[in-house]
Amino acid sequence: MTEPNNSAAVDALKQTFRRHASGVAVLTTHDIDGKPVGFTATSVTSLGATPPLVSFNVARGSSSWSALESAEYVALHTLGIDNVELAQRMAADHTQRFAHDDWKFDDRKLPIIDGVTSVLILRIREIVNIEANAVLIGDVVDGFVGTEQQPLVYFQRGYRSVD
Amino acid sequence: MTEPNNSAAVDALKQTFRRHASGVAVLTTHDIDGKPVGFTATSVTSLGATPPLVSFNVARGSSSWSALESAEYVALHTLGIDNVELAQRMAADHTQRFAHDDWKFDDRKLPIIDGVTSVLILRIREIVNIEANAVLIGDVVDGFVGTEQQPLVYFQRGYRSVD
Repeated sequence: MTEPNNSAAVDALKQTFRRHASGVAVLTTHDIDGKPVGFTATSVTSLGATPPLVSFNVARGSSSWSALESAEYVALHTLGIDNVELAQRMAADHTQRFAHDDWKFDDRKLPIIDGVTSVLILRIREIVNIEANAVLIGDVVDGFVGTEQQPLVYFQRGYRSVD
Repeated sequence: MTEPNNSAAVDALKQTFRRHASGVAVLTTHDIDGKPVGFTATSVTSLGATPPLVSFNVARGSSSWSALESAEYVALHTLGIDNVELAQRMAADHTQRFAHDDWKFDDRKLPIIDGVTSVLILRIREIVNIEANAVLIGDVVDGFVGTEQQPLVYFQRGYRSVD
Protein backbone atom coordinates (compact mmCIF):
# COMPACT_ATOMS: atom_id res chain seq x y z
CA MET A 1 0.00 0.00 0.00
CA THR A 2 1.13 3.54 -0.74
CA GLU A 3 0.13 6.86 0.76
CA PRO A 4 -3.09 7.84 -0.97
CA ASN A 5 -4.21 11.30 -1.85
CA ASN A 6 -6.69 12.76 0.60
CA SER A 7 -9.82 11.94 -1.43
CA ALA A 8 -8.91 8.23 -1.38
CA ALA A 9 -8.53 8.40 2.42
CA VAL A 10 -11.89 10.19 2.77
CA ASP A 11 -13.49 7.52 0.62
CA ALA A 12 -11.89 4.74 2.72
CA LEU A 13 -13.22 6.35 5.91
CA LYS A 14 -16.75 6.56 4.50
CA GLN A 15 -16.69 2.97 3.21
CA THR A 16 -15.53 1.74 6.61
CA PHE A 17 -18.08 3.61 8.69
CA ARG A 18 -20.83 2.40 6.34
CA ARG A 19 -19.83 -1.12 7.49
CA HIS A 20 -19.60 -0.22 11.18
CA ALA A 21 -22.69 0.05 13.42
CA SER A 22 -22.94 2.57 16.28
CA GLY A 23 -25.17 3.03 19.29
CA VAL A 24 -27.28 6.20 19.26
CA ALA A 25 -27.41 8.80 22.03
CA VAL A 26 -28.70 12.34 22.55
CA LEU A 27 -26.62 14.89 24.48
CA THR A 28 -28.33 17.94 26.01
CA THR A 29 -27.29 21.04 27.92
CA HIS A 30 -28.30 24.71 28.06
CA ASP A 31 -26.78 27.74 26.39
CA ILE A 32 -25.67 30.94 28.14
CA ASP A 33 -29.23 32.28 27.86
CA GLY A 34 -30.56 29.16 29.59
CA LYS A 35 -32.17 27.75 26.44
CA PRO A 36 -32.09 23.97 25.86
CA VAL A 37 -29.51 22.65 23.39
CA GLY A 38 -29.17 19.07 22.17
CA PHE A 39 -28.02 16.81 19.38
CA THR A 40 -27.89 13.19 18.29
CA ALA A 41 -24.49 11.47 18.56
CA THR A 42 -23.17 8.06 17.51
CA SER A 43 -19.75 8.61 19.10
CA VAL A 44 -20.43 7.93 22.78
CA THR A 45 -17.88 5.62 24.42
CA SER A 46 -16.91 4.62 27.94
CA LEU A 47 -13.41 5.64 29.05
CA GLY A 48 -13.09 3.35 32.02
CA ALA A 49 -14.95 2.94 35.30
CA THR A 50 -12.30 3.99 37.83
CA PRO A 51 -13.18 6.84 37.75
CA PRO A 52 -16.29 6.57 35.54
CA LEU A 53 -15.64 8.60 32.39
CA VAL A 54 -17.41 9.02 29.05
CA SER A 55 -16.28 10.61 25.78
CA PHE A 56 -18.19 11.87 22.75
CA ASN A 57 -17.34 13.82 19.61
CA VAL A 58 -18.82 17.07 18.32
CA ALA A 59 -18.30 19.10 15.16
CA ARG A 60 -17.16 22.55 16.24
CA GLY A 61 -19.25 24.04 13.44
CA SER A 62 -22.46 22.56 14.84
CA SER A 63 -25.33 24.59 16.31
CA SER A 64 -24.61 23.05 19.75
CA TRP A 65 -20.92 23.90 19.89
CA SER A 66 -20.98 27.30 21.61
CA ALA A 67 -23.21 25.92 24.39
CA LEU A 68 -21.06 22.79 24.79
CA GLU A 69 -17.84 24.75 24.86
CA SER A 70 -18.98 26.58 27.98
CA ALA A 71 -21.08 23.80 29.54
CA GLU A 72 -20.20 22.57 33.00
CA TYR A 73 -22.62 19.61 32.78
CA VAL A 74 -24.31 17.67 29.98
CA ALA A 75 -27.00 14.97 30.05
CA LEU A 76 -26.33 11.85 27.99
CA HIS A 77 -29.44 9.91 26.94
CA THR A 78 -29.08 6.42 25.45
CA LEU A 79 -31.79 5.63 22.92
CA GLY A 80 -33.92 2.59 22.17
CA ILE A 81 -35.86 1.50 19.11
CA ASP A 82 -38.92 3.49 20.29
CA ASN A 83 -36.83 6.69 20.13
CA VAL A 84 -36.27 6.89 16.36
CA GLU A 85 -38.33 10.08 16.04
CA LEU A 86 -36.26 11.67 18.85
CA ALA A 87 -32.99 10.68 17.14
CA GLN A 88 -34.21 12.21 13.87
CA ARG A 89 -35.50 15.38 15.52
CA MET A 90 -32.25 15.96 17.44
CA ALA A 91 -30.31 15.72 14.15
CA ALA A 92 -32.65 18.05 12.19
CA ASP A 93 -33.58 21.77 12.45
CA HIS A 94 -32.03 22.90 15.74
CA THR A 95 -34.80 25.43 16.42
CA GLN A 96 -37.39 22.60 16.63
CA ARG A 97 -35.48 20.09 18.76
CA PHE A 98 -37.25 21.00 22.02
CA ALA A 99 -40.62 21.92 20.49
CA HIS A 100 -42.28 18.76 21.86
CA ASP A 101 -43.48 18.37 25.44
CA ASP A 102 -41.30 15.33 26.16
CA TRP A 103 -38.58 16.90 28.34
CA LYS A 104 -38.00 19.09 31.39
CA PHE A 105 -35.07 20.84 33.04
CA ASP A 106 -33.46 19.13 36.03
CA ASP A 107 -31.86 20.92 39.00
CA ARG A 108 -28.72 21.63 36.95
CA LYS A 109 -30.88 23.11 34.15
CA LEU A 110 -30.10 20.15 31.91
CA PRO A 111 -32.95 19.11 29.58
CA ILE A 112 -33.92 15.54 30.53
CA ILE A 113 -35.92 13.76 27.83
CA ASP A 114 -38.63 11.19 28.68
CA GLY A 115 -38.79 7.63 27.40
CA VAL A 116 -35.09 6.92 26.75
CA THR A 117 -33.26 3.81 27.98
CA SER A 118 -30.95 5.62 30.44
CA VAL A 119 -29.59 9.03 31.40
CA LEU A 120 -26.10 9.89 32.64
CA ILE A 121 -25.14 13.28 34.02
CA LEU A 122 -21.58 14.22 33.00
CA ARG A 123 -19.36 16.99 34.31
CA ILE A 124 -17.16 18.09 31.43
CA ARG A 125 -13.52 17.58 32.38
CA GLU A 126 -11.64 18.10 29.15
CA ILE A 127 -12.21 19.24 25.56
CA VAL A 128 -9.67 18.11 22.97
CA ASN A 129 -9.89 20.13 19.75
CA ILE A 130 -8.93 18.16 16.63
CA GLU A 131 -9.23 20.03 13.34
CA ALA A 132 -12.94 20.95 12.90
CA ASN A 133 -14.06 18.58 15.68
CA ALA A 134 -13.72 18.10 19.40
CA VAL A 135 -13.60 15.14 21.77
CA LEU A 136 -15.40 15.96 25.03
CA ILE A 137 -14.56 13.94 28.11
CA GLY A 138 -16.84 13.98 31.14
CA ASP A 139 -16.94 12.48 34.62
CA VAL A 140 -20.14 10.57 35.41
CA VAL A 141 -21.69 12.28 38.43
CA ASP A 142 -25.20 10.84 38.40
CA GLY A 143 -27.55 8.72 36.31
CA PHE A 144 -30.77 6.77 36.19
CA VAL A 145 -32.28 3.92 34.26
CA GLY A 146 -35.15 4.56 31.86
CA THR A 147 -37.47 2.34 29.83
CA GLU A 148 -36.80 -1.28 28.84
CA GLN A 149 -36.47 -1.49 25.07
CA GLN A 150 -34.05 -2.78 22.46
CA PRO A 151 -31.11 -0.41 21.82
CA LEU A 152 -31.11 1.96 18.85
CA VAL A 153 -28.27 1.43 16.37
CA TYR A 154 -27.21 3.54 13.37
CA PHE A 155 -26.08 1.54 10.36
CA GLN A 156 -25.94 2.32 6.63
CA ARG A 157 -27.57 5.71 7.17
CA GLY A 158 -30.59 4.22 8.89
CA TYR A 159 -31.86 3.44 12.39
CA ARG A 160 -31.97 -0.22 13.35
CA SER A 161 -31.86 -2.41 16.43
CA VAL A 162 -29.90 -5.53 17.39
CA ASP A 163 -31.16 -8.94 16.31
CA MET B 1 -30.40 15.11 41.88
CA THR B 2 -27.45 15.34 44.21
CA GLU B 3 -23.80 14.46 43.73
CA PRO B 4 -23.53 10.73 44.31
CA ASN B 5 -20.66 8.90 45.84
CA ASN B 6 -18.33 7.30 43.33
CA SER B 7 -19.81 3.81 43.55
CA ALA B 8 -23.23 5.18 42.51
CA ALA B 9 -21.61 6.86 39.50
CA VAL B 10 -19.76 3.66 38.54
CA ASP B 11 -23.05 1.77 38.77
CA ALA B 12 -24.81 4.38 36.62
CA LEU B 13 -22.07 4.08 33.97
CA LYS B 14 -22.39 0.30 33.89
CA GLN B 15 -26.19 0.39 33.70
CA THR B 16 -26.05 2.85 30.83
CA PHE B 17 -23.48 0.99 28.74
CA ARG B 18 -25.46 -2.21 29.24
CA ARG B 19 -28.28 -0.41 27.40
CA HIS B 20 -26.04 1.01 24.65
CA ALA B 21 -24.89 -1.06 21.65
CA SER B 22 -21.45 -0.60 20.05
CA GLY B 23 -19.83 -1.64 16.79
CA VAL B 24 -16.90 -4.04 17.16
CA ALA B 25 -13.42 -3.51 15.68
CA VAL B 26 -9.94 -5.01 16.02
CA LEU B 27 -6.87 -2.76 16.10
CA THR B 28 -3.45 -4.19 15.24
CA THR B 29 0.14 -2.97 15.14
CA HIS B 30 3.60 -4.37 15.95
CA ASP B 31 5.73 -3.99 19.05
CA ILE B 32 9.34 -2.76 19.15
CA ASP B 33 10.51 -6.33 18.48
CA GLY B 34 8.30 -6.52 15.38
CA LYS B 35 5.82 -8.93 16.93
CA PRO B 36 2.11 -8.56 16.10
CA VAL B 37 -0.09 -6.87 18.71
CA GLY B 38 -3.87 -6.50 18.59
CA PHE B 39 -7.05 -6.14 20.59
CA THR B 40 -10.81 -5.92 20.27
CA ALA B 41 -12.34 -2.44 20.72
CA THR B 42 -15.90 -1.13 20.89
CA SER B 43 -14.82 2.53 21.08
CA VAL B 44 -14.02 3.31 17.43
CA THR B 45 -15.55 6.58 16.19
CA SER B 46 -15.13 8.87 13.22
CA LEU B 47 -13.80 12.35 14.00
CA GLY B 48 -14.77 14.04 10.76
CA ALA B 49 -13.87 13.58 7.11
CA THR B 50 -11.95 16.79 6.39
CA PRO B 51 -9.35 15.55 7.13
CA PRO B 52 -10.41 11.92 7.71
CA LEU B 53 -9.76 11.11 11.38
CA VAL B 54 -10.64 8.20 13.67
CA SER B 55 -10.45 7.84 17.45
CA PHE B 56 -10.43 4.82 19.74
CA ASN B 57 -9.85 4.20 23.45
CA VAL B 58 -7.33 1.92 25.13
CA ALA B 59 -6.68 0.99 28.75
CA ARG B 60 -3.10 1.95 29.53
CA GLY B 61 -2.76 -1.19 31.63
CA SER B 62 -3.55 -3.45 28.66
CA SER B 63 -1.08 -5.84 27.03
CA SER B 64 -1.19 -3.74 23.84
CA TRP B 65 -0.40 -0.40 25.45
CA SER B 66 3.40 -0.30 25.20
CA ALA B 67 3.22 -1.16 21.48
CA LEU B 68 0.47 1.40 20.83
CA GLU B 69 2.27 4.12 22.73
CA SER B 70 5.18 3.94 20.30
CA ALA B 71 3.24 2.95 17.16
CA GLU B 72 3.43 5.18 14.11
CA TYR B 73 0.65 3.29 12.30
CA VAL B 74 -2.20 0.98 13.33
CA ALA B 75 -4.63 -1.10 11.25
CA LEU B 76 -8.32 -0.79 12.14
CA HIS B 77 -10.48 -3.78 11.13
CA THR B 78 -14.29 -3.50 11.27
CA LEU B 79 -15.95 -6.82 12.10
CA GLY B 80 -19.02 -8.63 10.81
CA ILE B 81 -21.18 -11.35 12.27
CA ASP B 82 -18.84 -14.03 10.79
CA ASN B 83 -15.98 -12.60 12.91
CA VAL B 84 -17.27 -13.46 16.39
CA GLU B 85 -14.41 -15.91 17.02
CA LEU B 86 -11.89 -13.23 16.00
CA ALA B 87 -13.50 -10.69 18.36
CA GLN B 88 -13.34 -13.20 21.23
CA ARG B 89 -9.76 -14.24 20.47
CA MET B 90 -8.52 -10.62 20.29
CA ALA B 91 -10.04 -10.00 23.74
CA ALA B 92 -8.62 -13.17 25.36
CA ASP B 93 -5.07 -14.46 26.11
CA HIS B 94 -2.77 -12.00 24.32
CA THR B 95 -0.15 -14.65 23.58
CA GLN B 96 -2.64 -16.56 21.39
CA ARG B 97 -4.15 -13.69 19.41
CA PHE B 98 -2.05 -14.27 16.29
CA ALA B 99 -1.73 -18.06 16.62
CA HIS B 100 -4.10 -18.66 13.68
CA ASP B 101 -3.08 -18.44 10.03
CA ASP B 102 -5.63 -15.74 9.17
CA TRP B 103 -3.38 -12.66 8.93
CA LYS B 104 -0.18 -11.34 7.34
CA PHE B 105 2.02 -8.28 7.71
CA ASP B 106 1.58 -5.48 5.18
CA ASP B 107 4.36 -3.18 3.92
CA ARG B 108 4.18 -1.13 7.13
CA LYS B 109 4.50 -4.32 9.20
CA LEU B 110 0.90 -4.01 10.35
CA PRO B 111 -0.92 -7.33 10.85
CA ILE B 112 -3.84 -7.40 8.37
CA ILE B 113 -6.50 -9.97 9.26
CA ASP B 114 -8.51 -11.81 6.58
CA GLY B 115 -12.28 -11.90 6.30
CA VAL B 116 -13.23 -8.65 8.04
CA THR B 117 -15.65 -6.07 6.57
CA SER B 118 -13.07 -3.31 6.03
CA VAL B 119 -9.57 -2.19 6.98
CA LEU B 120 -8.34 1.37 7.58
CA ILE B 121 -4.69 2.28 8.00
CA LEU B 122 -4.25 5.06 10.58
CA ARG B 123 -1.21 7.20 11.33
CA ILE B 124 -1.35 8.05 15.02
CA ARG B 125 -1.50 11.82 15.43
CA GLU B 126 -2.28 12.31 19.10
CA ILE B 127 -2.60 10.34 22.33
CA VAL B 128 -4.69 11.90 25.10
CA ASN B 129 -4.06 10.27 28.48
CA ILE B 130 -7.11 10.29 30.78
CA GLU B 131 -6.64 8.57 34.14
CA ALA B 132 -5.91 4.87 33.42
CA ASN B 133 -7.01 5.15 29.76
CA ALA B 134 -6.01 6.88 26.56
CA VAL B 135 -7.84 8.25 23.54
CA LEU B 136 -5.81 7.65 20.37
CA ILE B 137 -6.51 9.82 17.34
CA GLY B 138 -5.26 8.81 13.91
CA ASP B 139 -5.31 10.17 10.37
CA VAL B 140 -6.71 7.77 7.79
CA VAL B 141 -3.95 7.19 5.23
CA ASP B 142 -5.25 4.13 3.38
CA GLY B 143 -7.98 1.52 3.48
CA PHE B 144 -9.78 -1.22 1.65
CA VAL B 145 -13.14 -2.93 1.66
CA GLY B 146 -13.44 -6.53 2.83
CA THR B 147 -16.24 -9.09 2.84
CA GLU B 148 -19.97 -8.33 2.64
CA GLN B 149 -21.63 -9.35 5.90
CA GLN B 150 -23.86 -7.90 8.59
CA PRO B 151 -21.96 -5.74 11.12
CA LEU B 152 -20.92 -7.12 14.50
CA VAL B 153 -22.40 -5.32 17.50
CA TYR B 154 -21.61 -5.72 21.21
CA PHE B 155 -24.63 -5.49 23.49
CA GLN B 156 -25.36 -6.80 27.01
CA ARG B 157 -21.99 -8.58 27.13
CA GLY B 158 -22.67 -10.55 23.96
CA TYR B 159 -22.01 -10.35 20.23
CA ARG B 160 -25.03 -9.61 18.04
CA SER B 161 -25.85 -8.11 14.68
CA VAL B 162 -28.39 -5.52 13.51
CA ASP B 163 -31.93 -6.61 12.69
